[in-house]
Amino acid sequence: MTILAHYLPILDWLGNYRKKDLSGDMIAGLIVTIMLVPQGMAYAMLAGLPPQVGLYASVLPLILYAIFGSSRTLAVGPVAMVSLMTASALSGLSGTDNQMAGALILALASGLMLLVMGIARLGFLVNFLSHPVISGFTSAAALIIGFSQLKHLLGMEIPRSHLITNIIEHVMREAESANVVTVALSVGLVALLLLWRGPGGRVLLHVGMSPAWVGPLAKAGPLAVVILGAGLVWLFRLDINAGVKIVGEIPAGLPSLHLQGIDMALAQELLPAAALIALVGFVESVSVAKALASKRRQKIDADQELRALGVANIGAAFTGGYPVTGGFSRSMVNFTAGANTGLAAIITALLIALTLAFLTPLFHYLPKAALAAIIVVAVSGLVDFRSLFRTWRYNGLDGFSQLATFAAVLALGIEIGIMIGAALAIAFYLWRTSRPHMAVVGRVGETEHFRNVLRHDVKTLPHVLALRVDENLYFANTRFLEDRMLAAVADHKNIEHLVLICSAINFIDASALESLENTVRALSETGVTVHLAEVKGPVMDKLEKSDFLKHLGEGEVFLSTHEAIKKLDRPHDTGPVI
Amino acid sequence: MTILAHYLPILDWLGNYRKKDLSGDMIAGLIVTIMLVPQGMAYAMLAGLPPQVGLYASVLPLILYAIFGSSRTLAVGPVAMVSLMTASALSGLSGTDNQMAGALILALASGLMLLVMGIARLGFLVNFLSHPVISGFTSAAALIIGFSQLKHLLGMEIPRSHLITNIIEHVMREAESANVVTVALSVGLVALLLLWRGPGGRVLLHVGMSPAWVGPLAKAGPLAVVILGAGLVWLFRLDINAGVKIVGEIPAGLPSLHLQGIDMALAQELLPAAALIALVGFVESVSVAKALASKRRQKIDADQELRALGVANIGAAFTGGYPVTGGFSRSMVNFTAGANTGLAAIITALLIALTLAFLTPLFHYLPKAALAAIIVVAVSGLVDFRSLFRTWRYNGLDGFSQLATFAAVLALGIEIGIMIGAALAIAFYLWRTSRPHMAVVGRVGETEHFRNVLRHDVKTLPHVLALRVDENLYFANTRFLEDRMLAAVADHKNIEHLVLICSAINFIDASALESLENTVRALSETGVTVHLAEVKGPVMDKLEKSDFLKHLGEGEVFLSTHEAIKKLDRPHDTGPVI
Repeated sequence: MTILAHYLPILDWLGNYRKKDLSGDMIAGLIVTIMLVPQGMAYAMLAGLPPQVGLYASVLPLILYAIFGSSRTLAVGPVAMVSLMTASALSGLSGTDNQMAGALILALASGLMLLVMGIARLGFLVNFLSHPVISGFTSAAALIIGFSQLKHLLGMEIPRSHLITNIIEHVMREAESANVVTVALSVGLVALLLLWRGPGGRVLLHVGMSPAWVGPLAKAGPLAVVILGAGLVWLFRLDINAGVKIVGEIPAGLPSLHLQGIDMALAQELLPAAALIALVGFVESVSVAKALASKRRQKIDADQELRALGVANIGAAFTGGYPVTGGFSRSMVNFTAGANTGLAAIITALLIALTLAFLTPLFHYLPKAALAAIIVVAVSGLVDFRSLFRTWRYNGLDGFSQLATFAAVLALGIEIGIMIGAALAIAFYLWRTSRPHMAVVGRVGETEHFRNVLRHDVKTLPHVLALRVDENLYFANTRFLEDRMLAAVADHKNIEHLVLICSAINFIDASALESLENTVRALSETGVTVHLAEVKGPVMDKLEKSDFLKHLGEGEVFLSTHEAIKKLDRPHDTGPVI
Repeated sequence: MTILAHYLPILDWLGNYRKKDLSGDMIAGLIVTIMLVPQGMAYAMLAGLPPQVGLYASVLPLILYAIFGSSRTLAVGPVAMVSLMTASALSGLSGTDNQMAGALILALASGLMLLVMGIARLGFLVNFLSHPVISGFTSAAALIIGFSQLKHLLGMEIPRSHLITNIIEHVMREAESANVVTVALSVGLVALLLLWRGPGGRVLLHVGMSPAWVGPLAKAGPLAVVILGAGLVWLFRLDINAGVKIVGEIPAGLPSLHLQGIDMALAQELLPAAALIALVGFVESVSVAKALASKRRQKIDADQELRALGVANIGAAFTGGYPVTGGFSRSMVNFTAGANTGLAAIITALLIALTLAFLTPLFHYLPKAALAAIIVVAVSGLVDFRSLFRTWRYNGLDGFSQLATFAAVLALGIEIGIMIGAALAIAFYLWRTSRPHMAVVGRVGETEHFRNVLRHDVKTLPHVLALRVDENLYFANTRFLEDRMLAAVADHKNIEHLVLICSAINFIDASALESLENTVRALSETGVTVHLAEVKGPVMDKLEKSDFLKHLGEGEVFLSTHEAIKKLDRPHDTGPVI
């Protein structure tokens, strides 16, 4: 692969395009379109934006990702989490025009951030969102998304709130203001989606339909709901006769390539939200991309993914869209429907463009309840309490950070919630490494093996203490190490030599080095000489650059614990007895 | 030691008090008083408070620390860093009364926080300020302190600013407004202090004075400066004749035990500053206490130190003082002057009380320039660029966080600066552990040792890849590990078995577990079986609580790499060749 192809992966797959890949790409492109048209409109509504914005975000970004992305099968476009975060970021703005302007700023800012991070090779930053934090966040966000759609499902006004309790309370109090026809429509459409997704496919297989047809058909539930919903409203004029809220006029035509003037004050205000959207979007996208690539022994380059998503979002900003990323369910569908290259995504983009050019009048009578039903069913699988129990059982601290993220997102909002979760996970990790496991070791039988005196029957020397530290030495555990070394010496009044076994130490930072120097000095003042054993090469290189070895004084650095004990066991080497 | 004596260390040393300890305690108590009277007043001035506040803070807090503190020789009282932080926290308040009320709130709030942290055993929290960060902070704070005293040294008005450049600029512009007599006095007193501290002691020894007298005398420089400064002003009435600023009326008498009404709005505003004062004060104090205790093979209990400093600060709040902590230089003096128990501190407290009761009129003519001279000379040794170079040479990331803390404190202020430094140090640590060292290993000769194929001449099997990971597996390095495992397999097309050697893995968190499960699944789909070797006991216990071992499928957990390779080398155990 040439350097150019590394930055433009399309050169790699388009140059080597095989005819046999074409049918898979075409079928996958079509099926994803069938999912994306209703989902794009639904997620735009979730983000508080007009439905066509979701379709605008499904043309150019897909093409740009196909050019720059290192995944062959990732399906980029509007997704639930990012739409919710967009809604939250824009909730302070009044009026659709302001919100659309804000959405463009979010797409542009998060796109630029992703691009810059990709150029600076900062892909590793996403690692700092741990799985439990992402999982807690996803469950809570799915609940918030679900409840945010209640107003559309019930056909009643509910003041926007990030607190689910507020929404429930309002619904209970104003239950009689719900629109009965809308409620009936919602219940019917949700039931249809659930049946379609669940037993529907099995029934078709049972009546003898070919699996090649059942697969794509099973993904067409949202399209069926859109057609059925719009058909019912149009047939009975439910919008006029029963007050069912509809999507209404959608401007026909492709998005034009332009960017309206940026309100810099607004941009500054939206910057933190854009950063979080970039981060969460990237984590979702790269996780899916890696999962799919590993199934075919392909590789994903995180930094190239950052650049590709960055360009895709900048593209969204220039074509009237809003922030996009690689979504889980659509990418899975794309993959299983047979997508082989980015051509599938390009086909999807062209079909969406055709939809925008010619089919928007068909969506006029689409009830908002149908879109809400699609959203609710799509996110219902994301609320995952089993994962919480599993994490908790495996590790209490991880379980706690998952639960805390979940609770914080629900109680304090998605931005603060995810930041609290990320900070907690880091704090727990630091806490864990701040009190490393240490063991006083002794010789096992006549071997060269040294093991923990508390777990094994081992031999020790009265005047030598061998202490193994099972962690890197760094600022968070220096005091602990110091305490333990001093305490070990205070507990063994007769010892003259302390051998620190460094087999599990991969680095020693400047704090730990200073602390070690102090401890060595303090121990030498009380007549104890400190030695090191089993120091790893890179650690030794660093130590030789410092004054530490001088501080050791009569202390030595031994290759192995065995050599240290062998040498210190001989009385004429132990120095004068104090 | 009984439980009661653990929480009240005074019971331990007072119950076992030996007559021979008395002379050391008395001499140390006296010498520390000689240092503390001028320093207490000087640091109160640094904090922007009237001089008597520094003396009030040197009575009850010392007695309370002697009762609760686990160090026998720590000298508690006003110190430079905490005084600077107090000044910074109170800079928004106008009027001496408001500032004194704010100082009491800071003492009370930081005291309560320390006490609660001590009861909750959160002493480990201080570990998160690394040595380079503290060192960078100290150097920058010392510079800020020095420049803050320029107005007293020059006898001119300088608007308060945390930016040294502002101060320098103002001094250059308004140089002619300096008070010449004050400048002359300052220069003389600073020179006297430097000479006294440096060559002074050597001269006295040279003329034949007993070292027993020279030691204490060498510490009396500040007292000499106070006496000389006040004497000169009084003799020539420099306050009236030359406009030299003096301390003026100091109310006589002991502080009364009371606490005025707390302004809750102000308290809330000062809370973050109080937390930082508590943290920085505790770090300084516990570092000194440990350094001194280790010299005598005594132990310091960090949690008991938190409680003792908490009670001492609450005591300061109830007696008109301001935040206190254990100071470096006075504690060193206390220790070397022969202090054996907390009685030395109690003697100091009683002597300060006598000073407050009877001697305050003597300080009326004390020029503020004399106090400023004491401050400047005291902090001059804290600006430490050599430490920066040493840290940088040892480790670039640590050096960078030291320099960044230094620069951030100077440019953005002490609170933000130290927080930026602490965050950077944590980020660097996470970054370092996020890309662990990994090595493909092979057998050394005919031994049971397995070493890095890149560094050693070793034998490997064509269908088995043995990979050693030198770091705990946690969320920040899961993706890296995943990538490396998949890349290793992609690079070795013939392998059927991947043995993950876990000898340096002390824990696997929930993120890493999930990621490992995904990787195992992905590899098994491509025909590669994953095995583990040398899993530590605690890690294995956790794995057995999870489903991970089921995910391994045909993969096994081997005790050692040797056993794994031995077993996988036999063709009839490798399973069907794919």
